[in-house]
Amino acid sequence: MFPESEFKVRRTRVRENLAELDVDALVVTALLNIRYLTGFTGSNGILLLTPSREILFTDPRYTVQSKRETSCRVRTVKGPTLAAVAKAINRLRLRKTGFEYHTIPFHIYTFLNQGLRPGGSLVPTRNLVETLRMIKSPVEIDAIRRAVETNSKAFSKVLPTIRPGLGERRIAADLEYQMRRLGGDGPAFDTIVASGSRAALPHARPTSKSVEANQLLLIDMGTIQDGYTSDMTRTIFLGRPTHKWKKSYQAVLQAQLAAIDAIRDGVPTARPDQKARKVLKSHGLDKAFTHSTGHGLGLEIHEEPRLGKRDRNKLRAGMVVTVEPGIYLEGGGGIRIEDTVLVTPTGCEILTPTGKELTVI
Amino acid sequence: MFPESEFKVRRTRVRENLAELDVDALVVTALLNIRYLTGFTGSNGILLLTPSREILFTDPRYTVQSKRETSCRVRTVKGPTLAAVAKAINRLRLRKTGFEYHTIPFHIYTFLNQGLRPGGSLVPTRNLVETLRMIKSPVEIDAIRRAVETNSKAFSKVLPTIRPGLGERRIAADLEYQMRRLGGDGPAFDTIVASGSRAALPHARPTSKSVEANQLLLIDMGTIQDGYTSDMTRTIFLGRPTHKWKKSYQAVLQAQLAAIDAIRDGVPTARPDQKARKVLKSHGLDKAFTHSTGHGLGLEIHEEPRLGKRDRNKLRAGMVVTVEPGIYLEGGGGIRIEDTVLVTPTGCEILTPTGKELTVI
Repeated sequence: MFPESEFKVRRTRVRENLAELDVDALVVTALLNIRYLTGFTGSNGILLLTPSREILFTDPRYTVQSKRETSCRVRTVKGPTLAAVAKAINRLRLRKTGFEYHTIPFHIYTFLNQGLRPGGSLVPTRNLVETLRMIKSPVEIDAIRRAVETNSKAFSKVLPTIRPGLGERRIAADLEYQMRRLGGDGPAFDTIVASGSRAALPHARPTSKSVEANQLLLIDMGTIQDGYTSDMTRTIFLGRPTHKWKKSYQAVLQAQLAAIDAIRDGVPTARPDQKARKVLKSHGLDKAFTHSTGHGLGLEIHEEPRLGKRDRNKLRAGMVVTVEPGIYLEGGGGIRIEDTVLVTPTGCEILTPTGKELTVI
Repeated sequence: MFPESEFKVRRTRVRENLAELDVDALVVTALLNIRYLTGFTGSNGILLLTPSREILFTDPRYTVQSKRETSCRVRTVKGPTLAAVAKAINRLRLRKTGFEYHTIPFHIYTFLNQGLRPGGSLVPTRNLVETLRMIKSPVEIDAIRRAVETNSKAFSKVLPTIRPGLGERRIAADLEYQMRRLGGDGPAFDTIVASGSRAALPHARPTSKSVEANQLLLIDMGTIQDGYTSDMTRTIFLGRPTHKWKKSYQAVLQAQLAAIDAIRDGVPTARPDQKARKVLKSHGLDKAFTHSTGHGLGLEIHEEPRLGKRDRNKLRAGMVVTVEPGIYLEGGGGIRIEDTVLVTPTGCEILTPTGKELTVI
């Protein structure tokens, strides 16, 4: 889907990093990292990168597909793919081979390690590719834009059909169906449709319960499209909201806008969270804000950076993050408002087109 | 959902196995194995089993849910769950603690290992819980029955709407939507809808391509419902099939029936595959049958046992397996027929109610 030059640049960046990490090679085992570096979308693959070489190992099921998807050198292997990787490491006499510490399964590590000749060893690397993935390229941003737009269209399509008596699971099924009808590959995560007091559970799963009049309805939904994700939460009211709920809604919206207002290149990742918390505190609602303000997204729905009060990173132009403060009152429901936002050199762009005014149906 | 006694029996079986494995305890990290042994469905949990103890470690998000779902002793831990597990292993002075070799991530193993006091060590165990999971209990069989029935109903609902011009992705979206409308939680795997020559790819993903008249259409679909999966493939014809395709269809059906006919308690797992291959050989189609005959299913869509020619296991009453011979002719399309089947003491029960006669629409 992306131009091959896109992947080439990424692989070159990793290869140029190897010397600094004091390794002679990197074995990439996380499939989404392989996709990020090569374009290959198969379910079995291992990528070996050295300063001068790029070899993707896979099996004969992917002979045709791998050639179509990547310009990387591909070796399709009958039998255990890992054995071929170990053999290549030995043949190239690589001494220190980096591996992906946080994602490699134990048995893969063990098999690979046992296949190495004396003199060769495995060295842990941490978040090497994940760090590159934080900053999105223009074609990635376009892909996220499409996922965001499909998601909002699906919401708009289903919103007019929501009425008291409809089951939470039914609404979730309708939303996910529309994501697909409108061009998405499906939901980026299990859609949350939580009504009334269940909206107080930040990660409620939809139940067979029907939504009722004069209650809150919290919908948290994301679409995956061409591999890239989006994420949006809206809280709507069925019937007449009380004055108290209206005020709480405005407080959350104000907190969300304050967090968004803080976003620009160079700002600490904890800043938007501080801003949101400050607004909620002024309304006496800070204790009810029980999670962090947002997270990066891209090939995965949760990526670096995190926007929590303890995060020690910096926002950079090209990052795409969610901004989603929320309040949860036990037994009383919850309100969360979430957009997908692109960090720019001078500020940010809210990608989510869906309105945030108080919606009463 | 299941009675607590169900989970208790399973945990007791594992605990009684520990001495034989020469370990003092087992750390269960695979979430579906934890669900199988405790009923707990949360996204963070580690189960520690010793001959006399059962402790589920999770975090405060799951305080309420874990108590509702399991009678196991639960420790909700703030901070790293793993650190609490290591501490418990040290406090109980366990010398040899088994871990799940094939599923534990490397960093989990490393963290746990580093937390152990001198004298304590980690010992690999292989497929301990997975082996128990092969034989389904009556309540599990009922759950699979429900998943199978929802799946077949979804197929019946969508079948009459299929016509030339409809996109593969649209048909897949409709099938998955109906699974949910009819009581399922969603697809057990990405639904395959492959028409014409694309049906020759055993794991084709649906494309935006429309299905055309006078072509084959292969649909491979499964529903997950209350945690349990189902799996079915049907190959239908749009328009008039040629005499050659009719004959090939009958050959695959005959192969599938021969494989099913071989299934009963005590039979080698390779036998159904041999039977199917023999039939296809008599039609000169054995070379076109490029995969194995089936696989177990349950909490996962692919479980032990496998029904391939090299598998060395025995079928046992209570196993639930797929039977799915298929033929694939490059450029010419593919035919596969798949049912979900329960092994019984004297034979088997085909759970899938959907007809297998040649369907022409």
